[in-house]
Amino acid sequence: MADARFFAVSSPISLADIAKLSGAVARGDSGMMLTDVAPLDRAGTGQVSFLDNTKYLADFSASKAAACFVREKFAARAPEGMALLITDEPYYAYALAAQYFYPRETFTPAISPAAHINPAATIGAGCRIDAGVVVSAGATIGNGCWIGANTVISEGVEIGEGCRIGALCSLSHAVIGKRVQLHRGVHIGQDGFGFAPGRGGVTKVPQLGRVIIGDDVEIGSGTCIDRGAGPDTVIGMGTKIDNLVQIGHNVQIGRFVFVVAQTGIAGSTRIGDGAMLGGQSGFSGHINIGAGAKIAAQAGVMTDVPAGASYGGGPAVPIKDWHRQTLAVTNLIKKRTTNE
Amino acid sequence: MADARFFAVSSPISLADIAKLSGAVARGDSGMMLTDVAPLDRAGTGQVSFLDNTKYLADFSASKAAACFVREKFAARAPEGMALLITDEPYYAYALAAQYFYPRETFTPAISPAAHINPAATIGAGCRIDAGVVVSAGATIGNGCWIGANTVISEGVEIGEGCRIGALCSLSHAVIGKRVQLHRGVHIGQDGFGFAPGRGGVTKVPQLGRVIIGDDVEIGSGTCIDRGAGPDTVIGMGTKIDNLVQIGHNVQIGRFVFVVAQTGIAGSTRIGDGAMLGGQSGFSGHINIGAGAKIAAQAGVMTDVPAGASYGGGPAVPIKDWHRQTLAVTNLIKKRTTNE
Amino acid sequence: MADARFFAVSSPISLADIAKLSGAVARGDSGMMLTDVAPLDRAGTGQVSFLDNTKYLADFSASKAAACFVREKFAARAPEGMALLITDEPYYAYALAAQYFYPRETFTPAISPAAHINPAATIGAGCRIDAGVVVSAGATIGNGCWIGANTVISEGVEIGEGCRIGALCSLSHAVIGKRVQLHRGVHIGQDGFGFAPGRGGVTKVPQLGRVIIGDDVEIGSGTCIDRGAGPDTVIGMGTKIDNLVQIGHNVQIGRFVFVVAQTGIAGSTRIGDGAMLGGQSGFSGHINIGAGAKIAAQAGVMTDVPAGASYGGGPAVPIKDWHRQTLAVTNLIKKRTTNE
Repeated sequence: MADARFFAVSSPISLADIAKLSGAVARGDSGMMLTDVAPLDRAGTGQVSFLDNTKYLADFSASKAAACFVREKFAARAPEGMALLITDEPYYAYALAAQYFYPRETFTPAISPAAHINPAATIGAGCRIDAGVVVSAGATIGNGCWIGANTVISEGVEIGEGCRIGALCSLSHAVIGKRVQLHRGVHIGQDGFGFAPGRGGVTKVPQLGRVIIGDDVEIGSGTCIDRGAGPDTVIGMGTKIDNLVQIGHNVQIGRFVFVVAQTGIAGSTRIGDGAMLGGQSGFSGHINIGAGAKIAAQAGVMTDVPAGASYGGGPAVPIKDWHRQTLAVTNLIKKRTTNE
Repeated sequence: MADARFFAVSSPISLADIAKLSGAVARGDSGMMLTDVAPLDRAGTGQVSFLDNTKYLADFSASKAAACFVREKFAARAPEGMALLITDEPYYAYALAAQYFYPRETFTPAISPAAHINPAATIGAGCRIDAGVVVSAGATIGNGCWIGANTVISEGVEIGEGCRIGALCSLSHAVIGKRVQLHRGVHIGQDGFGFAPGRGGVTKVPQLGRVIIGDDVEIGSGTCIDRGAGPDTVIGMGTKIDNLVQIGHNVQIGRFVFVVAQTGIAGSTRIGDGAMLGGQSGFSGHINIGAGAKIAAQAGVMTDVPAGASYGGGPAVPIKDWHRQTLAVTNLIKKRTTNE
Repeated sequence: MADARFFAVSSPISLADIAKLSGAVARGDSGMMLTDVAPLDRAGTGQVSFLDNTKYLADFSASKAAACFVREKFAARAPEGMALLITDEPYYAYALAAQYFYPRETFTPAISPAAHINPAATIGAGCRIDAGVVVSAGATIGNGCWIGANTVISEGVEIGEGCRIGALCSLSHAVIGKRVQLHRGVHIGQDGFGFAPGRGGVTKVPQLGRVIIGDDVEIGSGTCIDRGAGPDTVIGMGTKIDNLVQIGHNVQIGRFVFVVAQTGIAGSTRIGDGAMLGGQSGFSGHINIGAGAKIAAQAGVMTDVPAGASYGGGPAVPIKDWHRQTLAVTNLIKKRTTNE
């Protein structure tokens, strides 16, 4: 189904094998061969789909997919002849199946003759380094990394093994873990926005920290992460950051945090493990967001948020209060209408 | 008027000819030669200006412009001796005149010896490809394209004829129409933010779609457009997108839409033809914005918006309701003051 | 204290000398040698710290720093044996000390053989130009500039002496002052978002102005500044702009303005000297923000703001009104709770 110019599909796999790799229970001809994934409304012969959202129940019942990941409770709604892959986590199981059909792009190790690598840099085994890449003295790149075209890696930067750094990124003052993925145009390690006012005018405060990025972090295109002012800026392992996010100096983001696009986090704020920050949300400096907190899109968070709490609005408040405020303001104009 | 280091002005043109090319009716010496465009308050001998906003009526009456695009109803306010170019669309007509004096920059076809073009890529006739550009195998670039320095075009990308891709862009998994203009640092085709949570942790959902960009689209600097997850991400013909905009996976934007800077559109949302999205506005995923809808700057749109409707606020509501809510809240504190 | 891979510390300096360079009064052994700066809670032998925020008074009293910048009124709270550097501006004085220990990175002039410099460009003495840089005909780069890798400088651009342009920037249609610092991925001089609607569809309005940047301006990563449409876009001297900021055509920003990350300023708006614009704030076009105005984070400013005023909220109002509105809305739902 995917455009062959961009994606190569793996060889067919049996229903039994796909059940095994995805942790689902197969119900149907275990030897039937599956060739691809597809959405419910477009899947056909040999294709496997999933039902995760009840909104799509009708699509499920009408689907021509050969097989489908589905919860037990919806199995009876399947069209006749569809093989089922019963699981409590149909989207997760589907993702594993899709990963089988479309595994992560592999690469052939090669250092482009058009890359500019300082002899005092260390490049691990099995790396691919594309044209126009600049690697400065003292930088260390681990085994099996892929550095995209025209990316610039400054003095002393350390990159762990198995990382993929997209095209047109810049990295300085940074220590990057293993299997980190940066998309394109990510800028890591520049000076934070640190200025001290005085009678002699404003002067720049030297930014003496680093950016420390944990294993398995993924960072979206155009995102900027400033280095610490003295302490480090830290991104915990497994955290996923979307496009065009701004992370100020000394920010500490925990593990397995999700940061949606265009969010901004001001200096020295801490985000606890597993928090989820909605798109375009903003965070004042020097505040603490507890583990597992959920912040609504566009929220303006100016105070600490307790662990596990959901906040929204600007200034952000507990999300139920935000909804009630919104309702109260809506009622204000209803009343006015009545009185007019 | 424009700085000659950056802009070359065309040769003079007669009042009659400028009327013809702009669709205006000339009133004055049809053979008088015009040499340049300029704002009302700075225009002088040989220069042509325009009056579009009544705020500038006094400037018009005092202007030393040789000629001016103006609506009939303001013609009597012109200073003595000014030639008039009567039109119902003075700004549009001015734009056409300005395009005559300052036509789009032309270029000499040339492929820089410092570009890195894979032999299995196809480059059309009459292209200019600047230093540091990387074009991978299977990419196809149409006739008459200009690819700016250090831009990176990945495997299989298809670019139609007459496109201008600015410096430092990255493109992958994309099919680009004709006469598309990307400014600098645009990133198109990276993975969307797709993760599936499960008991085994969070796993990445392979992103198997593309980015499809229609003819005559223009995209501002720093904007990021993620490729589809399965369906494609689509930008309709004639749509204009400003700087630093985020467009998530599977988003479908119609034709002739305007998207102002720093707007963010979450995954799978659809924007109808001719809609106008104000700066810093944000859109939840999986919603539908009707054709011709107008969304105020910074609006947070969480629900469908009917065709032709104007919405504002966060959560966004019909714009009249938003204004009334704003007024009601303002009145709340007035009342409080009275009671204090 | 700083990671030696990224930062080189200067040689030790006496208490007397550090007092002299920072304008503080030394109280302690004036010959004692200081080796580094460090935060209060981590400083030890030979290290100098500062107390600026009373929140950290306990840290101060328990600190093992050898010396500390502090206001006279807190001197008595110092631990025994700590040398004091008495000043009314401890953070500013600390910044000067930190600048001594970690002076701005120096560079060896060199033009990379992998840079692409048009013979008709002018490069000053003592410049460093890194690999992959493209400099076009007619561009002028002043003495002592450092141009980072893969940056693209278009025809006619003028850069004053002592500038530092980070990696992966693009500049066109721009005149840059002295000692300007651009971080990475800054895009300056592209077309503004100018379109004129007419019966013949929408047409592009030629953008005939420039970007003029004053001396000592600093601009953060990913920021975009469009060139003027006819007038110029102007950034006044000493102004500091953070990451991912959008500045539209014809915007005029005064001197010594601070613009925090992800702010957006629409076309033709003017920002007065010394104004401070909070993160993610947005400004309509054609408005005037007075000198010294302070705008809260995420504010949506749709009207003029008087000089010296503080505004917040969306639509932005005087900040006291915004706080009172917030309180009034909070009270609305409290009342509702009481009545339920």
